[in-house]
Amino acid sequence: MPTAIHDLAALLARLPGVGKRSATRLTFHLLDAPEEYARRLGETIASLHRRVTACGVCGNLDDADPCAICTAPNRDDRTICVVAGVPDLWAVEESSAFRGRFHVLHGLLSPLDGKGPDDLNLAGLRSRVERGGVEEVVIATRPSVEGEATALLVRETLAGLTVRVTRIATGVPHGGELEYADRVTLGRAFDDRRDV
Amino acid sequence: MPTAIHDLAALLARLPGVGKRSATRLTFHLLDAPEEYARRLGETIASLHRRVTACGVCGNLDDADPCAICTAPNRDDRTICVVAGVPDLWAVEESSAFRGRFHVLHGLLSPLDGKGPDDLNLAGLRSRVERGGVEEVVIATRPSVEGEATALLVRETLAGLTVRVTRIATGVPHGGELEYADRVTLGRAFDDRRDV
Repeated sequence: MPTAIHDLAALLARLPGVGKRSATRLTFHLLDAPEEYARRLGETIASLHRRVTACGVCGNLDDADPCAICTAPNRDDRTICVVAGVPDLWAVEESSAFRGRFHVLHGLLSPLDGKGPDDLNLAGLRSRVERGGVEEVVIATRPSVEGEATALLVRETLAGLTVRVTRIATGVPHGGELEYADRVTLGRAFDDRRDV
Repeated sequence: MPTAIHDLAALLARLPGVGKRSATRLTFHLLDAPEEYARRLGETIASLHRRVTACGVCGNLDDADPCAICTAPNRDDRTICVVAGVPDLWAVEESSAFRGRFHVLHGLLSPLDGKGPDDLNLAGLRSRVERGGVEEVVIATRPSVEGEATALLVRETLAGLTVRVTRIATGVPHGGELEYADRVTLGRAFDDRRDV
């Protein structure tokens, strides 16, 4: 196998969900594709870390620091939504469910994976609240063991500050079938039932 | 979404088997990965076309032209194995079933996909045989409509030359279950039965 093909297949095989076989197939696809496409893809990957910067305020990844969300004038400064990662931030943004500011933890507590409190972007959150003006912190980590543990950690981090700390609701998703909902989801949906 | 992430996700989504969602996930994986890895992967992709060259003799892709197989001294010059693509060449090499030279067509006849005879690396094959010394051309295209049509085309291309043209056997694969073999495979396996 020529060195260039071997090298690329070995690098691609380290991506999640790409096995040895599909790494080779991808390499051949790139060889068959126009050289211009491969050159652009390669240069975009190589320059990714240089071009993307973490926002010093909220941890969001953006072209600029502070990020576009932190500097947007028309958002509600009184609420901060805490998310595990940037894709979660985007999901919340797309839903239009929230128009305040964000705080990105870059992970969830996960002792089995060696992720402890110090690995999360938490320090900045407390000082943001201490600076004043924040009335509510909504924790939007996912409903799982790690997500719940992280939510508790966020609440502890904010202990003693006069701020309301809330958690997004867990329940049967919109359009979801009750018969396919798991026990915990149904249990939560009943516990959190409300008057209609 | 920051421009760099948006650009990369859009480029990755053009790869086969990578949807919009997994393109975004891959982009975040690359951001989480060490910068050194992303830089090396990117540069290897960008330089791929420059580093890999098609062999002027057989069409194989290699670091050098002529390729390592064409210049290997210990191979049988009297037989040429015709394959559709370089991965097929590697599969034959790994099987040790063949120790002659190769000829890579870079595709199969496929009128529906706009692949005609002129799109295949065929011209070189006839002149290789005309130059003399080749006693047999083994066509190792896969047993499918396109593979069979291409095999017929290769035979036509060599018409009038004193060379034996053969085709690899089709049958139930080693270790395969008869009950799962399709009709055509079983039909071929019976047609090509041999004395034991």
